[in-house]
Amino acid sequence: MSQFTDVDRLAITTIRLLSVDQVAKANSGHPGAPLGLAPAAHVLWKQMRINPKNPNWINRDRFVLSNGHACALLYSLLHLNGYDFTMEDLKNFRQVNSKTPGHPEYGLPGVELTTGPLGQGISNAVGLAIAQANFAATYNQLKFNLSDNYTFCFLGDGCLQEGVASEACSLAGHLKLGNLIAIYDDNQISIDGETKLSFEEDVLKRYESYGWQVLSVKKGDDDLDSIAQVIEEAKANKEQPTLIKLTTVIGFGSLQQGTAAVHGSALKADDVKQLKKKLGFDPEKSFVVPQEVYDLYKKEIIEPGQKANDEWDKLFEQYRKEYPDLGEELARRFRKELPKNWDAKLPTYKSTDPPMATRKVSEALLENITYDLPEILGGSADLTPSTLTRWKNAIDFQPPNSGLGDYSGRYIRYGVREHGMSAIMNGISAFGAHYRPFGGTFLNFVSYAAGAVRLAALSGYPVIWVATHDSIGLGEDGPTHQPIETLTHFRALPNMHVWRPADGNEVSAAYKSALESMHTPSIIALTRQNVPQLENSSIEKALKGGYIVHDCSSPDLILVSTGSEVSICIDAAKGLAEENKKVRVVSLPDFYTFDRQTKEYQLSVLPDDVPILSVEVAATLSWGNYSHDHFGIDRFGVSGKGPDAFKFFEFTKEGVTERARKAMEFYKGRKMYSPLNKAL
Amino acid sequence: MSQFTDVDRLAITTIRLLSVDQVAKANSGHPGAPLGLAPAAHVLWKQMRINPKNPNWINRDRFVLSNGHACALLYSLLHLNGYDFTMEDLKNFRQVNSKTPGHPEYGLPGVELTTGPLGQGISNAVGLAIAQANFAATYNQLKFNLSDNYTFCFLGDGCLQEGVASEACSLAGHLKLGNLIAIYDDNQISIDGETKLSFEEDVLKRYESYGWQVLSVKKGDDDLDSIAQVIEEAKANKEQPTLIKLTTVIGFGSLQQGTAAVHGSALKADDVKQLKKKLGFDPEKSFVVPQEVYDLYKKEIIEPGQKANDEWDKLFEQYRKEYPDLGEELARRFRKELPKNWDAKLPTYKSTDPPMATRKVSEALLENITYDLPEILGGSADLTPSTLTRWKNAIDFQPPNSGLGDYSGRYIRYGVREHGMSAIMNGISAFGAHYRPFGGTFLNFVSYAAGAVRLAALSGYPVIWVATHDSIGLGEDGPTHQPIETLTHFRALPNMHVWRPADGNEVSAAYKSALESMHTPSIIALTRQNVPQLENSSIEKALKGGYIVHDCSSPDLILVSTGSEVSICIDAAKGLAEENKKVRVVSLPDFYTFDRQTKEYQLSVLPDDVPILSVEVAATLSWGNYSHDHFGIDRFGVSGKGPDAFKFFEFTKEGVTERARKAMEFYKGRKMYSPLNKAL
Repeated sequence: MSQFTDVDRLAITTIRLLSVDQVAKANSGHPGAPLGLAPAAHVLWKQMRINPKNPNWINRDRFVLSNGHACALLYSLLHLNGYDFTMEDLKNFRQVNSKTPGHPEYGLPGVELTTGPLGQGISNAVGLAIAQANFAATYNQLKFNLSDNYTFCFLGDGCLQEGVASEACSLAGHLKLGNLIAIYDDNQISIDGETKLSFEEDVLKRYESYGWQVLSVKKGDDDLDSIAQVIEEAKANKEQPTLIKLTTVIGFGSLQQGTAAVHGSALKADDVKQLKKKLGFDPEKSFVVPQEVYDLYKKEIIEPGQKANDEWDKLFEQYRKEYPDLGEELARRFRKELPKNWDAKLPTYKSTDPPMATRKVSEALLENITYDLPEILGGSADLTPSTLTRWKNAIDFQPPNSGLGDYSGRYIRYGVREHGMSAIMNGISAFGAHYRPFGGTFLNFVSYAAGAVRLAALSGYPVIWVATHDSIGLGEDGPTHQPIETLTHFRALPNMHVWRPADGNEVSAAYKSALESMHTPSIIALTRQNVPQLENSSIEKALKGGYIVHDCSSPDLILVSTGSEVSICIDAAKGLAEENKKVRVVSLPDFYTFDRQTKEYQLSVLPDDVPILSVEVAATLSWGNYSHDHFGIDRFGVSGKGPDAFKFFEFTKEGVTERARKAMEFYKGRKMYSPLNKAL
Repeated sequence: MSQFTDVDRLAITTIRLLSVDQVAKANSGHPGAPLGLAPAAHVLWKQMRINPKNPNWINRDRFVLSNGHACALLYSLLHLNGYDFTMEDLKNFRQVNSKTPGHPEYGLPGVELTTGPLGQGISNAVGLAIAQANFAATYNQLKFNLSDNYTFCFLGDGCLQEGVASEACSLAGHLKLGNLIAIYDDNQISIDGETKLSFEEDVLKRYESYGWQVLSVKKGDDDLDSIAQVIEEAKANKEQPTLIKLTTVIGFGSLQQGTAAVHGSALKADDVKQLKKKLGFDPEKSFVVPQEVYDLYKKEIIEPGQKANDEWDKLFEQYRKEYPDLGEELARRFRKELPKNWDAKLPTYKSTDPPMATRKVSEALLENITYDLPEILGGSADLTPSTLTRWKNAIDFQPPNSGLGDYSGRYIRYGVREHGMSAIMNGISAFGAHYRPFGGTFLNFVSYAAGAVRLAALSGYPVIWVATHDSIGLGEDGPTHQPIETLTHFRALPNMHVWRPADGNEVSAAYKSALESMHTPSIIALTRQNVPQLENSSIEKALKGGYIVHDCSSPDLILVSTGSEVSICIDAAKGLAEENKKVRVVSLPDFYTFDRQTKEYQLSVLPDDVPILSVEVAATLSWGNYSHDHFGIDRFGVSGKGPDAFKFFEFTKEGVTERARKAMEFYKGRKMYSPLNKAL
């Protein structure tokens, strides 16, 4: 006998039609997947432990809709389960400023992550599962099972085809994340038509090769008991993540079911009507929820969830008594606060200190701070000895009994998977508990992760890329590894810090900014090669994003620069001073931060009446908003020793001096306005 | 009895030591993989059909070194096999301006593709194999087997971990590319240490799930006969690509063999010496090639290759007589020329023609030109009905007997695999025969392919991204799909056209530029929504990259804009004219092309003495080099109807007019210099 009643079936119909009505009213959206997935969603949610009145409860089960285009389904579920989503919200589906945008956006109640760009959600889910495993291993104690939630994820063929998902899921298999359960909507249809046009691989076999448990349900859009059973089976396996393949019919019930036509366009009016009739609803009414459906969710999800959360709160209260230190630490993390004076251990440097590669400064800094910050979950995409991201006594995050580490470990061996790493970091961040993930790779290969970087910025996950080998200065690896466009790319991204520190103090400023940032991710671009410690740098000054690092009265020219070129500019300025040319040097380690200073401050750094020349071994397109003229590199790099590459492109004291002279000559007599002095 | 002699073993030792010597002399590079892979390389190359004196012979076998860091191996092979690589070149390994850069670069003789960024080479190899299959299906005739070459690829664990490779290899399995043979160096070591730290998946099982044949050799660094045998087996399977797993010891023979230490640093001097001694070479000598090794390659590779090429030349001569039309077409393609007057069919528009989405113009254009251009191999990453990239009578590129198309088909169903698609396009382009691949996706998701886009620009593969849904104008899909930083990102990339046409004529100009480009790739950003046909646009004008599209004498202000905002600017200018404000409008569809016009022309378009305001629904960082002030979007977009999104951000006639007024007011009385009028 089925464990499901007619009311369950009614609830499923309600989800289906609420989703169809949203798309129909907007005349935009994706009805196909919600129609096929509503049964699985209903069955799954009945098993989930969530508290809609406290969507951020740390021990809730997570639900990730990796096929984010099916968001009408999610919004229906959120409404029915008592999240802050009214019927009016559903009616405003896909309208400007509504709570029901075209793809789910992080920050909306009950929306765990921004999804839609395919492959990201499932990869984020791996991050959520990693965070849970680390959290549990760090804080659970005998009789205090503070954390034991699951991460569930719906995904479609598109997500499975994306490389980012392959990367993340391969790692999830290695990590034996038994708390991760992915449900694959095998509806055999994608936008171009049948999936057999391009996607015939044996998905289950592939996931087995990654080390996952694989299960399937043949009538995935109808067989509620089987769905419930495989979910139980998945939960029972604590040693492997599980992929459940549901065979479904896309657009179930529509006149166009089973075709690509039903994927991404509203059903026609008569189709909606016949569907409602077929499913026993009034064809003339829209946005209908029978009271017994509300009652079902109240009784079976909302109330038990509230109760579970209450019990957890009591447990945690008791925990704080029995484990006051851990309890205090946790309470701090729940408040999203760093430890008091955490930044006292940021290294500082005097100009008499020896030159250091900024990646080495970063290594020293991480060594100083990671022990006090259990929320840091670091790692590298198989470049640990180059990115220098592993602190000395780090334990690797690895499956227990692997002999390689355990789940309390905080250093993740991501493998050569930059995009997967980045999407996983986003998931770790979204878990809560103030997790602060960072990931190391070469700056050039942050580009491989552009899709995930963008979502970090869009969603406001304050994750950190430790991006070493930041320029032609990396030397012999050559143009395939030397970034040119990369800084500009990420500077153009809204809500994104792109730090390129010039010395040790600026590295500390970058980390301080990045770790104190609540909603803005950071890329910290670091040199492979040594740079001197500057005379006038400080954490405080650098935290303004841009500041005068070498000054003179009434300058004839301003050189504005970043990273390893700042000291070259200072050398040039000092040389020019000997010929009575007055040159100010400005270090601009983070455009985003500088752009947020007062106009008055900005104009005090880059004022009117002086020509401004930028100096950076990268694309000049970055600079038009800050300088009148630009010394940069608008071609690809060269393979050769780092210093030779700098010489080749004439980024030397002499090369900068020559261009500085040229600029002073050229602009002589011209009335100059700061590029920052503008109308809009 | 072995088919290999002592001279073969001597040749292998020579390759090993030449590679070690290159790295040692440069004191930089990767000795580990060459030491392990030299035997496989030697065995493989002896089976390859190549003509080192004519490295571009169309029917040569291709060899791709996907683990490009092992390039010392490749350079050794190229030298020994008579390519234009002297011993002096090997001695200049990794020096500025040498022929032996730190990673292989396309354009060097015998280097098929730029590799090094992991995962790209194997994905390019899929493209080479696709091109070969298409080429053979198009031109081979009874008795005229013009094309039957194989594509071989070496790859390591890193390549296998990268998502781009997963995408491309899944598609290769679907496409049943029997001409593709990949050899996996399973040396169990990556930079972080043993691969078991992060990569435990069953690689062969995964490739089986993709539909590949999988084979393996246990002593892959020594068992020459088994290597030869599995390569034969792979070649014999015409229905599946093959992955051969070679178990090898990284750094074979070094004191540090089998450890990460030997991956990416030169061997120490004493290690080099003991290795030479162990392998029977003089420990005091470097860069040694025994004459019998040169002789072996001459006799077994160079001379047979020359002969095969000569025979092919005769065959082709005969072919041209028996199939004059095809022969003529092929000769044209080998000359890398488009058909005469090919551009006569580019659509043109008058301002009285109805408004059209530029993606619709692109559809009409492709319909007009693809039939005459067999070198076009198009496709879409599962967005065909949105990118409108499939011409009416297109045949899909699909395996014969699939019922879905055949190998002569020129439309590729890439699946949801943007990065894989892009890397495959690079490979198709590098095949030769003037292949002109294009791939369709949303502009925002070209970012997923950033790694491959960058390599197209770096290598000079003139591929084309048809990038529709180019702005907030795409509407309801919302901020996850609306590009903001994307144009800036790719504009900052050297050697890259980024076209954003304002109307139909500009679309034709973009395609004309893109298809006539020999060494520069193009992104063509197209609207989802309708735009009017402009009064003063033309293909010729747009081909300058920027031009005056609406003029007046002595303008008070210049609005410079791209794409769908140009017509809004013209409306604003016309409105302002009614209040006697004189406003010029400049359309700047491609910065790259405009930057290559004479300074005189540039300054005639964007002159001194007038304030210039940019108008573009994207990041303002793009604009500092062209305009004084910028009306753009430095935040993420909104989910809502396209016109509502434009209204929300005030990109309307009124919104532009207001900002134009503000700018004119602000700059009144200020002596203006064009941002293009600068010293450097």
